[in-house]
Amino acid sequence: MLDFQKMNDLVPAIAQDAETGEVLMMAFMNPEAWRRTLDTGIAHYWSRSRNQIWKKGETSGNVQQVQEIRVDCDGDCVLLRVRQVGGAACHTGYRSCFYRRVEAGALIVDGEKLFDPAEKYGASP
Amino acid sequence: MLDFQKMNDLVPAIAQDAETGEVLMMAFMNPEAWRRTLDTGIAHYWSRSRNQIWKKGETSGNVQQVQEIRVDCDGDCVLLRVRQVGGAACHTGYRSCFYRRVEAGALIVDGEKLFDPAEKYGASP
Repeated sequence: MLDFQKMNDLVPAIAQDAETGEVLMMAFMNPEAWRRTLDTGIAHYWSRSRNQIWKKGETSGNVQQVQEIRVDCDGDCVLLRVRQVGGAACHTGYRSCFYRRVEAGALIVDGEKLFDPAEKYGASP
Repeated sequence: MLDFQKMNDLVPAIAQDAETGEVLMMAFMNPEAWRRTLDTGIAHYWSRSRNQIWKKGETSGNVQQVQEIRVDCDGDCVLLRVRQVGGAACHTGYRSCFYRRVEAGALIVDGEKLFDPAEKYGASP
């Protein structure tokens, strides 16, 4: 169903808030993350920095309950429509990882911050 | 502003309909595609299959007029909020490349088809 061959066993996966349509984050899935997402209905990704399966929200509690899974024309990208528990998808505390917009060559923060990562994780990420 | 180092000079770029919030497609940008997108306000990507800059819509006329550019927390993913000229982002004629949803292990087509690729491109893609 998915073409994992194009990118060393990874496909990009986009998480979108199923209710508001806001794009929350982008991460990668390997075949195991894809299988666990299908099996559990909870978003799993592959962490390239930690080199391991990453159940989103395992530490913060902000898991993503998958409402719908969509696949693109080439079968090499996944769109998860999710219910984001806790509201914030980003480890920085913002609702969306895309909390900055480009304006006149600069990044302007205009996203909504829902928690303080220092309080949530016990230290700055 | 963007971290192109993580993935061989590429960053994933998501195109989202600025009006409806529908996720239209995902593609990659290299530094040159990023610069052209900023300079022209029209989405440019890097085609991995053709190994060249790809001005989306150059053949079909279905260009993407960029309304807003957002960057994620790590600076390694871009979200373009666009006006999709012609309505259809996908070369298959569907409004979105994500025209299929996963249901019981199968892909169900439920997207809206706006044109016939054979008519538009003169041959099946």
